[in-house]
Amino acid sequence: MWKLFMFEKPAGMRDTLPELYQLKREVREAISGEVSRWGYAPIETPTLEYHETVGAASAIQEQQLFKLLDQDGNTLVLRPDMTAPIARIAASTMKNAERPLRLTYDAPVFRSQQREGGKSAEFEQIGVELIGDSSNSADGEVISLMIASLEKAGLENFQIAIGHIGFVNAYLQEILGNETRADTFRRYLYEKNYVGFRKKAEQYPLSSIDQRRLKELLSLKGGTDVLEKARSLAESREALEALQQLEDLVQVLEAYGLTDKIMIDLNLVLHMSYYTGAVFEAYSEGLGYPIGSGGRYDKLFSKFHSPQPATGFGLRLDKLTEALGKIKDSVSNDACVIFSNERRKEAMEKARALRESGRSVVMQDHGGISDIDRFSAQFKEVIYFVGSNGNGGDSK
Amino acid sequence: MWKLFMFEKPAGMRDTLPELYQLKREVREAISGEVSRWGYAPIETPTLEYHETVGAASAIQEQQLFKLLDQDGNTLVLRPDMTAPIARIAASTMKNAERPLRLTYDAPVFRSQQREGGKSAEFEQIGVELIGDSSNSADGEVISLMIASLEKAGLENFQIAIGHIGFVNAYLQEILGNETRADTFRRYLYEKNYVGFRKKAEQYPLSSIDQRRLKELLSLKGGTDVLEKARSLAESREALEALQQLEDLVQVLEAYGLTDKIMIDLNLVLHMSYYTGAVFEAYSEGLGYPIGSGGRYDKLFSKFHSPQPATGFGLRLDKLTEALGKIKDSVSNDACVIFSNERRKEAMEKARALRESGRSVVMQDHGGISDIDRFSAQFKEVIYFVGSNGNGGDSK
Repeated sequence: MWKLFMFEKPAGMRDTLPELYQLKREVREAISGEVSRWGYAPIETPTLEYHETVGAASAIQEQQLFKLLDQDGNTLVLRPDMTAPIARIAASTMKNAERPLRLTYDAPVFRSQQREGGKSAEFEQIGVELIGDSSNSADGEVISLMIASLEKAGLENFQIAIGHIGFVNAYLQEILGNETRADTFRRYLYEKNYVGFRKKAEQYPLSSIDQRRLKELLSLKGGTDVLEKARSLAESREALEALQQLEDLVQVLEAYGLTDKIMIDLNLVLHMSYYTGAVFEAYSEGLGYPIGSGGRYDKLFSKFHSPQPATGFGLRLDKLTEALGKIKDSVSNDACVIFSNERRKEAMEKARALRESGRSVVMQDHGGISDIDRFSAQFKEVIYFVGSNGNGGDSK
Repeated sequence: MWKLFMFEKPAGMRDTLPELYQLKREVREAISGEVSRWGYAPIETPTLEYHETVGAASAIQEQQLFKLLDQDGNTLVLRPDMTAPIARIAASTMKNAERPLRLTYDAPVFRSQQREGGKSAEFEQIGVELIGDSSNSADGEVISLMIASLEKAGLENFQIAIGHIGFVNAYLQEILGNETRADTFRRYLYEKNYVGFRKKAEQYPLSSIDQRRLKELLSLKGGTDVLEKARSLAESREALEALQQLEDLVQVLEAYGLTDKIMIDLNLVLHMSYYTGAVFEAYSEGLGYPIGSGGRYDKLFSKFHSPQPATGFGLRLDKLTEALGKIKDSVSNDACVIFSNERRKEAMEKARALRESGRSVVMQDHGGISDIDRFSAQFKEVIYFVGSNGNGGDSK
């Protein structure tokens, strides 16, 4: 047993080797640089939180939480997202910080996976939260910043699908008349199971007009003309207000010159939980999984006894590096100084000078190498300080 | 209950607010830059590992492990150190990578704490592992690199205490004759409980010469002359060999001009587990806790069926920032562009231009601010694009 799985990792857990790490680091630095230039301040929260507080406030389903007990018998969770922990801080330690408050994070989050699924159970998320601003400008800012971040990371072919959970809720409610039924259809949308949605719609005892209207929801995806079509279908004040918000938001994004990056998707349901307004998801060409998402969550803060509006986004660094797909062949092994004991000091001085000029230099005692040909073949340049008769620094 | 501890965090868990985060980030970047210039390649490992493999190989005591069960009933641990996970990778995925292998990491590690203690249960560790080189040069390199890293981080008054666990083991064995007794005294050294050591020594049925020799161990701390004194006390081949290794190591460090940074501490016992040779610990003036430690661990790899020598160090980022002690008063809020809807486009263009020049610029819809005086007071510069009659960008 021991020997059999000596090198195994728990389900969904990954190592990041140097080649991928370098790419992750470049992407991370590009995004955190951009986010910082937009005036977002970085914070960190602990990996473990109480299940009863932050765990319960998060949008992640119970069976996806990693849970453990502390020494006092309280249940802890590995944080499944960063929005709830940041809400905890914004509602307590940073309660008196000026609003709107702009915060950013870069941290691993944890979601338990079935062994068979092959999905990551731990992944790095980089994101922002804009707290205390209910204006369309705030929604527009986080979407613009997500686009700017993806561009700085070097991603080219991507699009942001924008929806509104308030519209979905109101529209389902108008047609179906109660929350339980609405929830059934919302779940199909969350799972992007449109076939299931359509089948279920046909089984429902609805007037033929309402049945058509229910199924028409699935067609509300595409350019901004979708908003007009939606307005002709919707009846309730709530649905029409949500559409107006979306239209204003689209105008903000158009003013920023981002028209070609966005599309409307009025089927977009991100979770079963805390979003309340405009929601969005980023897709990269050829990748079957969104690289990021976000939206307005004006009700979450009331769970922390401090109601206030907020919006934000989170990007998945693993999916983003996958979409970029340009892992370097190997980490650049710049230079190596190989030395023998007698010439250690010369070697050290050479290495120090090269490092001070910004180069990466391995310093290696010749006695610690078993195969000098294979070892030196790794480097672009090898400088020898070996043997007492040589002159300073013979280069390969 | 819910309301009472709504904002609490589990024992030993901390938030990092923007001011401290900025300092952490600077220190992190200074160290990872230096480590990279010395040719170390960065890797990441998962937060969760199997208890039976990496958990058991780590040097952390069982009661300090955070444990949980996965869906198949296996026990998982939150990684308590990075050395064992890196050994797992070096012995499997990177088994065929050329030796010596130089790897670096920067990651949180987890050690469960009693609620009363006030110690961190999660802390960020930055370190290196140099794998496959048993030479004194390798020990010298990791100590030199730890010193260079601390200097790059801006730390001034620090010292590295260097010991040798092989010497401690051999010396205790010579005097006490068996492992159980040696272990009792080794534990006092690990706990730095020298009063306990001395008392216990006096209770032991030893010849007066051996009792003196046992107590003399506690005096073997100071300059490099300590090595000579130790040589006059030790008798066994193993103890004398360990002292010879230390003397060679000191010569390496002297060649690198690091004499004033090091001292000898032959009482140094870092854990009850995997170290085998030279060990060391970094202290900063005025801080009651080491900021980093490391040493040679030539036996750990045999637990991964791949025996090979290795050495490395780990620095505690929390202790290091505490030692630096220069948290910025507040995060620099460079500039803010405040706009009304009609002048959004102008505002965006201004913000974009400033950001492209490298500045940090918050862009804020005037309608999202509740108190404009308090809000604008946060920034060094505020530029207004408000009202339809103004000229472009009135500065405060």
